[in-house]
Amino acid sequence: MDNRDGDYRWEHRHLLGLEMLSAEDIRFLLQTAVGLEDVSTRSIKKVPALRGRVVVNLFMEDSTRTRSSFSLAASRLSADVLDLSGSGSSVSKGETLRDTARNIEAMGVDVIVCRHALSGAAMQLADAVSCSVVNAGDGQHEHPTQGLLDLYTIAQRTGREDFDLSGLTVAIVGDIQHSRVARSNIHGLLKLGASVILVAPPTLLPRGFSDLGCELCFDLDEALPRVDVICMLRVQFERLTRQAFPSVREYVSGYGLTERRMALARPGTLVMHPGPVNRGIEIEAAVADGQQSTILEQVTNGLAVRMATLFLVSTASGTS
Amino acid sequence: MDNRDGDYRWEHRHLLGLEMLSAEDIRFLLQTAVGLEDVSTRSIKKVPALRGRVVVNLFMEDSTRTRSSFSLAASRLSADVLDLSGSGSSVSKGETLRDTARNIEAMGVDVIVCRHALSGAAMQLADAVSCSVVNAGDGQHEHPTQGLLDLYTIAQRTGREDFDLSGLTVAIVGDIQHSRVARSNIHGLLKLGASVILVAPPTLLPRGFSDLGCELCFDLDEALPRVDVICMLRVQFERLTRQAFPSVREYVSGYGLTERRMALARPGTLVMHPGPVNRGIEIEAAVADGQQSTILEQVTNGLAVRMATLFLVSTASGTS
Amino acid sequence: MDNRDGDYRWEHRHLLGLEMLSAEDIRFLLQTAVGLEDVSTRSIKKVPALRGRVVVNLFMEDSTRTRSSFSLAASRLSADVLDLSGSGSSVSKGETLRDTARNIEAMGVDVIVCRHALSGAAMQLADAVSCSVVNAGDGQHEHPTQGLLDLYTIAQRTGREDFDLSGLTVAIVGDIQHSRVARSNIHGLLKLGASVILVAPPTLLPRGFSDLGCELCFDLDEALPRVDVICMLRVQFERLTRQAFPSVREYVSGYGLTERRMALARPGTLVMHPGPVNRGIEIEAAVADGQQSTILEQVTNGLAVRMATLFLVSTASGTS
Repeated sequence: MDNRDGDYRWEHRHLLGLEMLSAEDIRFLLQTAVGLEDVSTRSIKKVPALRGRVVVNLFMEDSTRTRSSFSLAASRLSADVLDLSGSGSSVSKGETLRDTARNIEAMGVDVIVCRHALSGAAMQLADAVSCSVVNAGDGQHEHPTQGLLDLYTIAQRTGREDFDLSGLTVAIVGDIQHSRVARSNIHGLLKLGASVILVAPPTLLPRGFSDLGCELCFDLDEALPRVDVICMLRVQFERLTRQAFPSVREYVSGYGLTERRMALARPGTLVMHPGPVNRGIEIEAAVADGQQSTILEQVTNGLAVRMATLFLVSTASGTS
Repeated sequence: MDNRDGDYRWEHRHLLGLEMLSAEDIRFLLQTAVGLEDVSTRSIKKVPALRGRVVVNLFMEDSTRTRSSFSLAASRLSADVLDLSGSGSSVSKGETLRDTARNIEAMGVDVIVCRHALSGAAMQLADAVSCSVVNAGDGQHEHPTQGLLDLYTIAQRTGREDFDLSGLTVAIVGDIQHSRVARSNIHGLLKLGASVILVAPPTLLPRGFSDLGCELCFDLDEALPRVDVICMLRVQFERLTRQAFPSVREYVSGYGLTERRMALARPGTLVMHPGPVNRGIEIEAAVADGQQSTILEQVTNGLAVRMATLFLVSTASGTS
Repeated sequence: MDNRDGDYRWEHRHLLGLEMLSAEDIRFLLQTAVGLEDVSTRSIKKVPALRGRVVVNLFMEDSTRTRSSFSLAASRLSADVLDLSGSGSSVSKGETLRDTARNIEAMGVDVIVCRHALSGAAMQLADAVSCSVVNAGDGQHEHPTQGLLDLYTIAQRTGREDFDLSGLTVAIVGDIQHSRVARSNIHGLLKLGASVILVAPPTLLPRGFSDLGCELCFDLDEALPRVDVICMLRVQFERLTRQAFPSVREYVSGYGLTERRMALARPGTLVMHPGPVNRGIEIEAAVADGQQSTILEQVTNGLAVRMATLFLVSTASGTS
């Protein structure tokens, strides 16, 4: 493994969001993931790339899946992993995030993987420490490794080995406004050349998103025949019913991905979901488990993408 | 280490219960444990047998002891361990057990060790995934590694190096009806040739157990002089007083193992308990700490038996 | 690495407190830490000293920082680490500490690192088991590795390579009465030759402390000009306001370390704090982050000191 390719050299010590990366950066990271993908299918799932390095999971919001994926990715590179979960621990004993981070750094760590409810938390951390910071989701801002694994999955399923997604149209469906997954996907897809249609009720889809270069659409049935990929977002019940919509049932009838509705899409249209799935809410079981669904592949690809991320940021020469 | 012996070959990819194993399977697993026992007494407690394999502890019910034992067993074989505890984690964020399991598998794991409140959960898991599943206790069904470590301890203490327990009589005492430990012990003991007497108040000992080939007995004092081994079950207070018995005190007076009562047993009768012990309830402190007690040996043997289990299931060629 | 130096040989199988160690023991442990310090600054932060050994963190009181520090220290020596946290786990399912400890030992472990709310808990544990026990804080008794890392930091900052602190005067400021950190520091500082001034309101500073050989002082402003080092203790709000003082504000006005107050101290006076810091309470932000503050160095040195501790106790030949 290497962090250069011809004249290109990966120089990012942090992964804070896809907005800050160039198309070349993203493609290089995804190519690195390709080289690491098969480690997870061997009986000895381990390479010595990060032996003796320390990765700290600092999750101030609970997320068993993302945390597990990062833990396994780190182990597979032979790094040591320390899990710090925020709730109920002295991590947050009246201490600022900055103090917490500087204390962790002082113990001699290489990468802090951070999940936080506050948009911008990962960047704040990166400013406070000299070790690497990987954003594992910060408020409504970004969740870059989720974006990367989605890009990886789309490219793999559509045979785009060079990670050029030109000519593909991707719909992102659900609560766009509050979704960090949507934001990371939008930035990544546009950079790699895809067209993006955002589909949601008007209350969850602010006009400003069109400035990013996306098409806005309030009618899923209208969008479906025109897309190659459908990225469903997870419904977060509390937020949805309290703020934006009269009832979950009404939301589902307009934006739930049912088998009946899938008939409007072209054959072979991919169905993606970041998990965990609310079966029967944003997606019907038959669709989630169907041939066109990539849900479990996304989980598998998450490992490769996170291995690539941890490897690249911790061997980067740059300072940003 | 090997998973064959002459014509015999271990072929079980899962360990779901002792009911499904043959006597030959059980003896082979216990023999494998013998070969692994001394790893835990060395200063370097590690063999490379499962290096680069991944064992996931999926404990949807809390059990620090069993989880710790499996974690150490996996580490001792050089496997990587990922702990997923269910309560309060997004493992259970509205997701089915089947979805959880398939997501874990998609991250590239070799063995899922599962503890669940529901009888049959481990089998459900095994049906959903293609990696190995080890049942670490499912509802009132089975807790096979506890059964195995009890068999191991009995054989070791009675000098049965071939794990033939013919001629031995074992009493299992306590809330038989709700005990997965009792069920696994019954199947294991009978398969290895021992006689089993189940001792409990009638409310906790359904008639159907005699169909398995056990003797039912409602009077501990009557059974004691006839047995070589006494397996005490842990009293689970809530269940006991709410459902089956007027008071704990009354239960203890009839079924608690006191020093006075032990005088009825033959010298050398073994006293077993799966822990943690309620001193002064199901067993008196002097009995729990006496020469005839095997309680700490059971804990030690649990390591060897779990190492053997993890090794065999993850190197099995079979599909069941 | 070795556990002898000329005629001296480290023989303590446990680290229960600094009161029980000789000056020679303390100096030898700190010298060992010097040899291990640079492991944490390499890219491969790992030496094979304790490969295949098992360290168990048994924390019956929550302490993410101390636990993390011990976990990383153990990993850096290539030991395996098992985390057992007490609250809500079956560690404490009606079981005595002695039973818990003997069960852990029966799984084949080398060191138990114990944090407990009860003074004397670590010693109780050491009596119950034959593996090593390291006290990570027991009630109001001792927190020896915190004391050691403070000694290490003072020696490093004052250029005392032989860990002889004669001629230095150290103030310990805050709730002395209830502080295990204060107790470990007092024993350590006096053994290495420093003078100690304890500074607190009379309600938090029992007369008996003068018998240990410390000066008692109730006026921080009076003490400041006379000291080389100020060790601030963390304010524990509940305890403070309920038992000892009319209000936090009043406490702070008398004993908080402000920038204004620091003007009374000699230039170069060190400011120490065990963390986590209550900024604006026992210490002002500008002081905590200033040139004279050693707070983050203390965290870094904690790793080296805990590595030395784990290495020495687990390779000791002695029985005490």
